[in-house]
Amino acid sequence: MKTSIDCIPCFARQTLQAARFVTDDVREQEAITREALRVVADMDFDQPPPVIVQWLHRHLREITGSADPYRETKEQLNRLAFEMLPVLERRVEQTSDPLALAVRYAIAGNAIDLGAYAGTSTEELWASLDATLDQPFHGEVEALRSAAAAAKSILYLADNAGEIVFDRMLLKQLPAGRVTVAVRGGPVINDVTRRGAREVGIHQLAELVDNGSDAPGTLLSDCSPEFLERFHDADLIISKGQGNFETLSDVVAPIFFLFEVKCELASAHAGLPVGTRALLPSAHFEAWLPG
Amino acid sequence: MKTSIDCIPCFARQTLQAARFVTDDVREQEAITREALRVVADMDFDQPPPVIVQWLHRHLREITGSADPYRETKEQLNRLAFEMLPVLERRVEQTSDPLALAVRYAIAGNAIDLGAYAGTSTEELWASLDATLDQPFHGEVEALRSAAAAAKSILYLADNAGEIVFDRMLLKQLPAGRVTVAVRGGPVINDVTRRGAREVGIHQLAELVDNGSDAPGTLLSDCSPEFLERFHDADLIISKGQGNFETLSDVVAPIFFLFEVKCELASAHAGLPVGTRALLPSAHFEAWLPG
Repeated sequence: MKTSIDCIPCFARQTLQAARFVTDDVREQEAITREALRVVADMDFDQPPPVIVQWLHRHLREITGSADPYRETKEQLNRLAFEMLPVLERRVEQTSDPLALAVRYAIAGNAIDLGAYAGTSTEELWASLDATLDQPFHGEVEALRSAAAAAKSILYLADNAGEIVFDRMLLKQLPAGRVTVAVRGGPVINDVTRRGAREVGIHQLAELVDNGSDAPGTLLSDCSPEFLERFHDADLIISKGQGNFETLSDVVAPIFFLFEVKCELASAHAGLPVGTRALLPSAHFEAWLPG
Repeated sequence: MKTSIDCIPCFARQTLQAARFVTDDVREQEAITREALRVVADMDFDQPPPVIVQWLHRHLREITGSADPYRETKEQLNRLAFEMLPVLERRVEQTSDPLALAVRYAIAGNAIDLGAYAGTSTEELWASLDATLDQPFHGEVEALRSAAAAAKSILYLADNAGEIVFDRMLLKQLPAGRVTVAVRGGPVINDVTRRGAREVGIHQLAELVDNGSDAPGTLLSDCSPEFLERFHDADLIISKGQGNFETLSDVVAPIFFLFEVKCELASAHAGLPVGTRALLPSAHFEAWLPG
């Protein structure tokens, strides 16, 4: 998915938010924002949006001298999600179609903004989870079920800290021994890395690798040869989050995208309204869909 | 009021909106947006926000070769508001406190986005007007009443096309023969100029002047000497809209600001929540307030 001029106000908003997150010094925030505007002014719009966010966060890590400014936040997100897990797991075990519910929870993990609940009441967080499950869902779980049953090698592309806890339930529904989970190769925003995935025991459920890149998505041109080999060998790729959708939506590969449609641009590209919880197959799987 | 880094996403959004308004050519929209980002990256944040919007619209007029790209839109806004006038005027005449209602309508003219209703039903527009009158109002009409009764010379700073029609009712409540209405000195967005004010008969209710500037506010450093003389001679200035508030809030002068608080920055500066319909006196008049 290419970048649009519609992304620019959003880049500006994200820059501001990130600048405020990494420093309390107003002058430094201003300098970061001015510098980011200059970079955005010259950026290549043929690239997907995560490219500029990758640049921004490299720049932030450089000037703050912190290799991972979001480390504590990510740990909090994981803890918060982990507290919810036993109840959710029980629900998945007790339902008549565990895969369908696990898919909904995996997308809910992408949709609820855990960061907004750090420090607020657990009741509100649960209410938010229930609300997100009430949102319109678009997708054919049966197509994913068939693809998963047929696949010899499944690559699961994780997205954020916190969200990765919700992925545990879906991972347990996939054929044991055939799944590899890939996380980012380096810290960027609150995206999950090896460290965060191990924190919540993902390595006990599947093989754990990283993609060698610090882009908030899966920018194949920036990934390691080892990751690319797995990517091309997989006969099913499950891709979490809008960042992975933005970077992989034009790639020819057997992908199911699981994400919340978060902006107008992604909405136009996916052909789904903003707010939809989507299980969207790439062209590879469209023939598998009913009708 | 100085510019804040919080204004940057809003500048980006306004740029995009304006670029799309003046041209259908996507490359031209992109070029305009990139150029604006470079200018914002280097702007002086000690200036109020309208300075950058003034630059942007000068730039848009230059590259489109149109002296007034919003001319038709402004005529539509005036027509739309004018159709509502007879009913509103009757309400003002029949109420027990015409000045108080005229003040509310003058602020409603600033708050309802007439542009959003061009082409939609009149019912919706009336519903929007009623909704805006239900919003929280902050202000002491009595202080304005006293100031107007005592003033020998009143300067009324108009804001947008369409909104100017609503100003007619308030102008009629002010002492006859003592009021001058000032509009922008040149086209900028949908702000009202001499042409638009004459369209709706403002020159028949008060003396009509312009401020010599094409900023979307009252940037005194950019106004004509003739206007500045009137500004400094007035013993009551009624200032409409957030653009005028942003450019005059730090000026020592006998001003009442009538506007809807439209963003967080103006909210912090005015000490009023976003969405408030405000009749806000400058420090000059604070001694006139009860309590």
